[in-house]
Amino acid sequence: MKAYCEMTREELLAEKAQLEKEFEALKAAGISLDMSRGKPAAAQLALSDDMMDVLSSESDFKAEDGTECRNYGIVRGLPEARRLMGELVGVSADKVTVFGNASLNIMFDTVSHAMVKGVCGGKPWLLQGKVRFLCPAPGYDRHFKITEYFGIEMITVPMTPAGPDMDMVEKYVNNDPTVKGIWCVPKYSNPQGYSYSDETVRRFAALTPAADDFRIFWDNAYAIHHLYEEADRQDEILEILSACEEAGHPDMVYEFFSTSKVTYPGSGISAMATSANNTADLQKAMTVQTIGHDKINQLRHVRYFKNLENVKAHMMAQAAIMRPKFEAVEKTLEESLGGLGIGTWTKPNGGYFISFDALPGCAKAIVAKAAEAGVTMTGAGATFPYGRDPEDSNIRIAPSFPTPEELTEAGRIFVLCVKLVSLEKMLSA
Amino acid sequence: MKAYCEMTREELLAEKAQLEKEFEALKAAGISLDMSRGKPAAAQLALSDDMMDVLSSESDFKAEDGTECRNYGIVRGLPEARRLMGELVGVSADKVTVFGNASLNIMFDTVSHAMVKGVCGGKPWLLQGKVRFLCPAPGYDRHFKITEYFGIEMITVPMTPAGPDMDMVEKYVNNDPTVKGIWCVPKYSNPQGYSYSDETVRRFAALTPAADDFRIFWDNAYAIHHLYEEADRQDEILEILSACEEAGHPDMVYEFFSTSKVTYPGSGISAMATSANNTADLQKAMTVQTIGHDKINQLRHVRYFKNLENVKAHMMAQAAIMRPKFEAVEKTLEESLGGLGIGTWTKPNGGYFISFDALPGCAKAIVAKAAEAGVTMTGAGATFPYGRDPEDSNIRIAPSFPTPEELTEAGRIFVLCVKLVSLEKMLSA
Repeated sequence: MKAYCEMTREELLAEKAQLEKEFEALKAAGISLDMSRGKPAAAQLALSDDMMDVLSSESDFKAEDGTECRNYGIVRGLPEARRLMGELVGVSADKVTVFGNASLNIMFDTVSHAMVKGVCGGKPWLLQGKVRFLCPAPGYDRHFKITEYFGIEMITVPMTPAGPDMDMVEKYVNNDPTVKGIWCVPKYSNPQGYSYSDETVRRFAALTPAADDFRIFWDNAYAIHHLYEEADRQDEILEILSACEEAGHPDMVYEFFSTSKVTYPGSGISAMATSANNTADLQKAMTVQTIGHDKINQLRHVRYFKNLENVKAHMMAQAAIMRPKFEAVEKTLEESLGGLGIGTWTKPNGGYFISFDALPGCAKAIVAKAAEAGVTMTGAGATFPYGRDPEDSNIRIAPSFPTPEELTEAGRIFVLCVKLVSLEKMLSA
Repeated sequence: MKAYCEMTREELLAEKAQLEKEFEALKAAGISLDMSRGKPAAAQLALSDDMMDVLSSESDFKAEDGTECRNYGIVRGLPEARRLMGELVGVSADKVTVFGNASLNIMFDTVSHAMVKGVCGGKPWLLQGKVRFLCPAPGYDRHFKITEYFGIEMITVPMTPAGPDMDMVEKYVNNDPTVKGIWCVPKYSNPQGYSYSDETVRRFAALTPAADDFRIFWDNAYAIHHLYEEADRQDEILEILSACEEAGHPDMVYEFFSTSKVTYPGSGISAMATSANNTADLQKAMTVQTIGHDKINQLRHVRYFKNLENVKAHMMAQAAIMRPKFEAVEKTLEESLGGLGIGTWTKPNGGYFISFDALPGCAKAIVAKAAEAGVTMTGAGATFPYGRDPEDSNIRIAPSFPTPEELTEAGRIFVLCVKLVSLEKMLSA
């Protein structure tokens, strides 16, 4: 099929008429599908069900250091949980603190601590007047919601396949003391699935912030979430904590990760890795906020997995469920939109999303049209600070939750909406 | 034995010499006992071990409304968890939100939200200049740590057996707009084990705060933590939410509670009960902070207990373990200190603590001396704001953790320390 931009007006009108018929037919089918969030599918949840058998009334509830896991205490988490969680991201246990069921909560609380008490004894951000965060975008909407909640001004930084535009990051961080942080999903980024290059990580580590209380918020959410078994299709990134140490900036980064998309979302364990200074600073809040997180769930996770190899094997079972879905979406996009010149999309090796870029000004209309036919997408704009995509172009596709059959159906509707909205745009131009 | 104040100096010196010998002997025994925190004992933990068998890989993980508990979502908690938790404090499910593993965390986060964003759209407390909390004391040290962390000025309000000095509470709350909150443990208060009278609760409900953003922080930590089976030895208090509604102040209270001392401390579930307005306000933070709390643990708790009657029966099993410990401490105190005029103590019907008042100026020295002999008590002063007991008199006794045998031993050491320090005080006067 030829590209839409090469068609005559008559050809476009004919195409549109044909597609509208198809759309009405699909709409009449009255389906209801959700591709809005990175929610694991039922089959993925079942992979962890055996974890529910790990602890029973007959269990020994002592951690390896003798800690009674059923009782209060141990604010930094069980030693074996800290060690295993550290291994997931290549960091030693002494840098790791294990928290509750969600790393999002740690990020929120870490920003909160900075707002109210300042970073490592610095002035509270809330009392500093304007403070700002760099937001590589498209990015994770829940990151942006945190900074928005706290009234932190967000500056959009363009993403590239190698990571954020580092020239812009360096310019801001090294010169502007109101810039206090940057949100990063360094591996299989949300939503593009890009992984930061070694050069990008090194440039991060080499930053010389104008603000003493600048921190990198390194959300390594998809550290082990590969889609492929082949080593050359598994992205690896440099370990940021040691990179920062080597560059002489050991306190510059907070790293977050969890088992939310490893075991059960919402019933996993989460962790933060950072320097001793930062840990001591954050403990000032933590030890007031809690007596300790759920150690029984930490014990359950550690006894279930035992070691890193088992976690990796588990993730390959996850990949076996996820991969066909990604490939089905990519196939539908390629077959239906390839060569039309009305959209581009990413083909990630891991993570939870495919990022789709429509013609400028079309994203909102495409998402609205898909909703009309019963397919819920992530709201257009959600991948940008304040929910505003300046190009109105980016759409996040989350293939994990639907079944493969539903995904084929949803994919058909999505591409139809892309075509129709693009045609309307072109015809009205 | 006659009261110390009736003894001659010679008698006091002789008594002291005798007690010092006893103390050296006990010290030489080299014991190590912890009576510092309200930590359940091993036997209490075992009462909940069957809960670990409730869910297995064969379980149906659907909540009663069909929610898949293994996946993301449901920020206010499972309907059946909200209902059961509400029943513990006599509040309907629509007012209840179920959180993670600790109500302390909810309290911290609720104060944090008020500091950063204000209460129900009000000006953030952090930007209001001086803000203050009333702190009935002796009280719970972790409450005071939260307000201290946030830089909120604390005003001590004396406790009576019927609750806080309500004349003082009314004077402050109804006239001083810098007073934003009050910490309350209304039932089996920490550390005295006092329960607020109906009149006290009604006076709370009838407060007409000078500050729109004043809230009562009602930590109903021991709502079902009776020590006795007999109805006339089970304290009951008025339900505060309906009392506030009836008085025309539906938004004035946040109520907190948890299963921390019902099932496993640190691996229980926690909850907040409050009005629809307050819930909507707090959700502005919650929905940014988390996608949802641990629903699997909520499901585990609800399926284990099934109903309120079973929870109550469980608490009577807890009481059967706790009661002899309280009675052992009370017996030791009565037998060793009764009539000496050097200390008074409470005899609660529930909760986790006995509150001991030594002669003014003796508490710190008693706690230090007990530590010398291997018995760790809660730090003297901890029960007051800023850790400063103006009388240096109050000591919190936590009988739950040691075994009965250990408790007898620790009790012997404690009373000896009380006597010795009191004698030193009297002799140096």
